[in-house]
Amino acid sequence: MADIGRGWRHLADRNPLVRFVDSCLRGAAQVVLQNNPLSGLLILIALAWGAFENGMPRVFGGGVLGLVVGTATALALRVDMSSWRKGLFGFSPLLTGLAVPTFLDQRPLMWLYLVLGAIGTVVVTLALNAVFKRWNLTAYTFPFVLTTWFLLMAAYQFDRFTVLTKLTPKFPGEGSLTGGTFDWGLIPVFFKGVSQVYLIESWVTGLLILVALLINSRWSALFAVIGAVGATLLALWFGADGASLDKGLFAFNAVLTAIVVGAVANRPGALVTVYTLFGIALTLFVQMALTTMLTPLGIPVLTGPFNIATWLLLLPDRHFAPVPNHERVKDTVLHTVRDSVNLR
Amino acid sequence: MADIGRGWRHLADRNPLVRFVDSCLRGAAQVVLQNNPLSGLLILIALAWGAFENGMPRVFGGGVLGLVVGTATALALRVDMSSWRKGLFGFSPLLTGLAVPTFLDQRPLMWLYLVLGAIGTVVVTLALNAVFKRWNLTAYTFPFVLTTWFLLMAAYQFDRFTVLTKLTPKFPGEGSLTGGTFDWGLIPVFFKGVSQVYLIESWVTGLLILVALLINSRWSALFAVIGAVGATLLALWFGADGASLDKGLFAFNAVLTAIVVGAVANRPGALVTVYTLFGIALTLFVQMALTTMLTPLGIPVLTGPFNIATWLLLLPDRHFAPVPNHERVKDTVLHTVRDSVNLR
Amino acid sequence: MADIGRGWRHLADRNPLVRFVDSCLRGAAQVVLQNNPLSGLLILIALAWGAFENGMPRVFGGGVLGLVVGTATALALRVDMSSWRKGLFGFSPLLTGLAVPTFLDQRPLMWLYLVLGAIGTVVVTLALNAVFKRWNLTAYTFPFVLTTWFLLMAAYQFDRFTVLTKLTPKFPGEGSLTGGTFDWGLIPVFFKGVSQVYLIESWVTGLLILVALLINSRWSALFAVIGAVGATLLALWFGADGASLDKGLFAFNAVLTAIVVGAVANRPGALVTVYTLFGIALTLFVQMALTTMLTPLGIPVLTGPFNIATWLLLLPDRHFAPVPNHERVKDTVLHTVRDSVNLR
Repeated sequence: MADIGRGWRHLADRNPLVRFVDSCLRGAAQVVLQNNPLSGLLILIALAWGAFENGMPRVFGGGVLGLVVGTATALALRVDMSSWRKGLFGFSPLLTGLAVPTFLDQRPLMWLYLVLGAIGTVVVTLALNAVFKRWNLTAYTFPFVLTTWFLLMAAYQFDRFTVLTKLTPKFPGEGSLTGGTFDWGLIPVFFKGVSQVYLIESWVTGLLILVALLINSRWSALFAVIGAVGATLLALWFGADGASLDKGLFAFNAVLTAIVVGAVANRPGALVTVYTLFGIALTLFVQMALTTMLTPLGIPVLTGPFNIATWLLLLPDRHFAPVPNHERVKDTVLHTVRDSVNLR
Repeated sequence: MADIGRGWRHLADRNPLVRFVDSCLRGAAQVVLQNNPLSGLLILIALAWGAFENGMPRVFGGGVLGLVVGTATALALRVDMSSWRKGLFGFSPLLTGLAVPTFLDQRPLMWLYLVLGAIGTVVVTLALNAVFKRWNLTAYTFPFVLTTWFLLMAAYQFDRFTVLTKLTPKFPGEGSLTGGTFDWGLIPVFFKGVSQVYLIESWVTGLLILVALLINSRWSALFAVIGAVGATLLALWFGADGASLDKGLFAFNAVLTAIVVGAVANRPGALVTVYTLFGIALTLFVQMALTTMLTPLGIPVLTGPFNIATWLLLLPDRHFAPVPNHERVKDTVLHTVRDSVNLR
Repeated sequence: MADIGRGWRHLADRNPLVRFVDSCLRGAAQVVLQNNPLSGLLILIALAWGAFENGMPRVFGGGVLGLVVGTATALALRVDMSSWRKGLFGFSPLLTGLAVPTFLDQRPLMWLYLVLGAIGTVVVTLALNAVFKRWNLTAYTFPFVLTTWFLLMAAYQFDRFTVLTKLTPKFPGEGSLTGGTFDWGLIPVFFKGVSQVYLIESWVTGLLILVALLINSRWSALFAVIGAVGATLLALWFGADGASLDKGLFAFNAVLTAIVVGAVANRPGALVTVYTLFGIALTLFVQMALTTMLTPLGIPVLTGPFNIATWLLLLPDRHFAPVPNHERVKDTVLHTVRDSVNLR
C-alpha cells in the first residue's frame, strides 16, 4: 500500500497528466480538508454511487466537469504550484459543479453556465483568499458558496433557466414547522449529514466518505461523526423542521466546522473538543439564521454557515488554539492539512 | 466620595471577586462608553426600574445574567486583562441578555439560548475586534447586534420559540405611515431615547442614565442629549413613523454616535460639534435604510445604525479629528474612554 | 487645441476658481475613468441633452449640484489635493446628484436630501477608500452606490418622500419574464448602455460620451463599446427581460468593467482582452444576482455589479495583470488613469 503511494507520487512528479489527475483527486478530498489522492478517489466513487442512487447521474458528471475545469483554469492562471498540487484549487469548483445540475433544470445552456461558474469559482477563490490573507484565514468553501448563490440568483432573471431549489421565495415564519422525532431512524441521518457536504443525500455515500476520512486522518473522521450527531440532536431538541432534519440538512455544515476546529486548525485535545462542541452549536444557529435571511430569495444556505462559524471561531486566534499552530498561517497555501499518511 | 473610589479600586486590585464585580459594573457603563463602576451601578438600578415599570422583570434578569456570563467567559478565554478590567467584554453580552427576553417568549429553553448567546457574543467580540483592528477601529456594540440578529433569525426556524418583535416580515412601503407631532410630549421622548440604548422605554431610566453619564463625563452627557434631541427632531421633520418616534426609537442610535464622535473619539470643540451634527443626521438616515432592509426579515435594527455610521465617520481619520487622538489606536483595547473622574 | 489645453492648465494652477471648475469637469469625466476637463465638459453637455430629451431637466440640475457640493465638501475636509485636482472626489457625488431626482419625486425637501447625500458621498468615499487601501484597491463608484441605496431605502420610512423607482418590492421570480429580440433596434441600445452609466436613457448622450472617451483614450472608448455590445448580446442570448434590455440597462455596468479591466488597470493586449470578455460575462451575472437580491427591497442595482465584479477581477492581482502596473497602487490616489492627451 505504502509502495503504491510512493510510486504514484513519483509518477506525479514526472508526468504532467498524472500530476493533473493527482491534483483533481486531492481536490475531491480537500472539500473535507484531506490532502490524499486515495481519499479523493474513494470520495468520487461515493459521489457516483449517490448520484446514480438518486437518479441524478448528471450531478456526478457536473461535479467531475467542475473539478477538471477548475483545476485547469487555475493552471492557466499560473497560481501557486504547491497549493495547486495539494488540490486547493479543485475543491470549490467541484462543489459548484455538483450544485448547478442539482438546482437548475437539465438543458445544454446549463452546462455552459456550469463551466463559466467553475472558472468563476477559481477567480473568486483567488480574490477571497487575497482578502482573508490579511487575517491569516482562508476562504474555505466560500468561493463555491458565493459563486453558486450568484449563479442561482442570476438564474431567476433569465428566461431560459428554471430554478429547482424547491425553495419558493417567501417571508420567514410563513408555513408550518414540525419538529423531528427521536428514534432509530436517526442513524442513517447521521451518515446522510456527511454525504450532504457534497450535496448528495445517501447514507452509503456518507459511510464511504467517512472511510475516505479514516484512511487519511482518524481525528477528522471522529470529529466528522461528532459534528453530524451533535448538530442533528441539537436541531431535534430545539424543534427544527423534521423533513429537512431527516435529509441530513442540519448536519453537513457542523461536520465541516468540527473537522476544521477539532482536527485541522487546532491540535486535538480536551479543551479543543469543548471549543468544537460550542462551535457545532454556533454553526447550527448560524445556519438557522442564514436560512431565515435567504428565505425571501429562495436560495439554499449551502456551506455558508460552516464558513461564517469557522471564521468567527478562528479569528480570536490565541484564545481557541491553546497549542500554537504555526502551520495554519502561510502566505500562498489556502488551507493546510497536518494529518498525513503514507499516500500523501 | 473620592476616598470611597480609591478604596474600591484598592479592593478590586486584591480581591478577585470584587475585581469581577468591578468589571461587571464597568461593563454596564461601557455601553455608553464610560469606564466607571459607579456609573455602571446607577445604570443597573435604572435598568431594574425600567424593567419593572414595563412589567418585564425578566428583561433585567436577562441583562444581569448576560453581563455575568459574558464577563466570566472572557475570563475563561484568557483575554487581555487590562481590557477586561475596563468592562470591555461585558457591555455587549449585557445587551444580548437584555434583548433575548425582550424579543423571545418566556420559557426555560429561552434562558439556555440567552446563556449560549452571551458566550457567543464574547467570541464574536474577539473575532470582530480582530477584523476591525486592521483599520484602528473597534467593533463597538456590533458583536451584540450581530449575535442578537442571528439569535432572532434562528428562532424563526425553531418550533420551540415564538418571536415577539412585533415586526411581522413584510415588504417595505406596505402599511401606512403617519408622522409625529411637535408638542411638549416630546420632552419625555428625548429621555426615552436615552433609555432605548438599553432596549428599555422609560423616561425615568433615561434620566438616571444621563446622571450616570454626568458623574463620569459632562461632555458625554451633553452630546447624549444633543443626539437624542437632534435625531428626534430631524425624524419628526422628515415625517418618520409617529408611534416609533414617541417610543424614542429614532434617538438611541444617534445618542451613541454623538457620544463617540463628539466626546470620546475626538476632542470636543466647535468643528467636532459640526461633524457630530452631521453624524446624527447620517445615523438617522442609516437607521431608516436599515429598517427598510430588515423589513422582509422582521427583525429590529438594534444599535446597528450607530455602528455603521460611526465607522463611516471615523474611518477617514485625519479629516474628522482635527486634534490627533493617539489614545484611540491601541492594540488590545477595544475602546478607550478619555474622560476620567476620581472613581476610575 | 494643445495650446488651449496648456493655457487652461496654467490658469488652473494660479486661479482657485478655475481650479475648482477644472476639478469639477475632471470629476464628470472620472465616472468613466478619464482625467480630462474637455471630456468632462462634453459629458456635461451630453447629460444636459439627455435630461432635457427625457423631460427631466431637474436630473441635470441635481447632477451639477451634487458635483459642486461634493467637490466643495472634499475641499473643506482638506483631502489629498493631488487626488482632488484629478476630480476623484467629484464623480461619486455627481452620480448621487443624478440619482436622487431620478428616483424621488420633485419637492423642496428633495434638494436638501440631495445636498446631504452629496456630502455623505464624500465621507463614504474617504471611509471606503481607507478600507480598500488594504488590498491596493479603490472603491470606484461604490460610495455613490452605497449612499444612494441608503437614501432610497431611508426614503421608504419618511412620510414626505415618494419613491419613484418603478420597482415595487416583491419576491424574485414573481411576474412574467420575456426575453428581447435580435434586430437592428439593438444599435441604439448599445449607445443607451453607455448613457445609462450616468442614469440617462438617450442614444445621443451615449454617443457624445463615447466621443468624450475618444478624445482622451482610444482604448477606453473601444472597451466601452465592447462592454456594451458584449453584455447586451449575452443578456439577449440567456433570455433576460426584453424591456430592460431595450433601455440599455444590461450594458452600463459591463461598460465600466470593460474600461477598468481592459484599458485602465491593465495594459491593453490579447490576454487582457480575454480576461475582459470573461469580466463582461461576470459583470452581467453579478448584475442579475444583485437584481434578485434587491427585488424584495425595490431598489435598483445602480453600478454595484461593476464594483463587485471589478474587485473580484483585480484582487487576484498578478494573475490578471500580465504586465505589472505599479501605478495602480498609490496611497492617496483613488484611481489612476494612465491614458493621457495634451489636455490633461
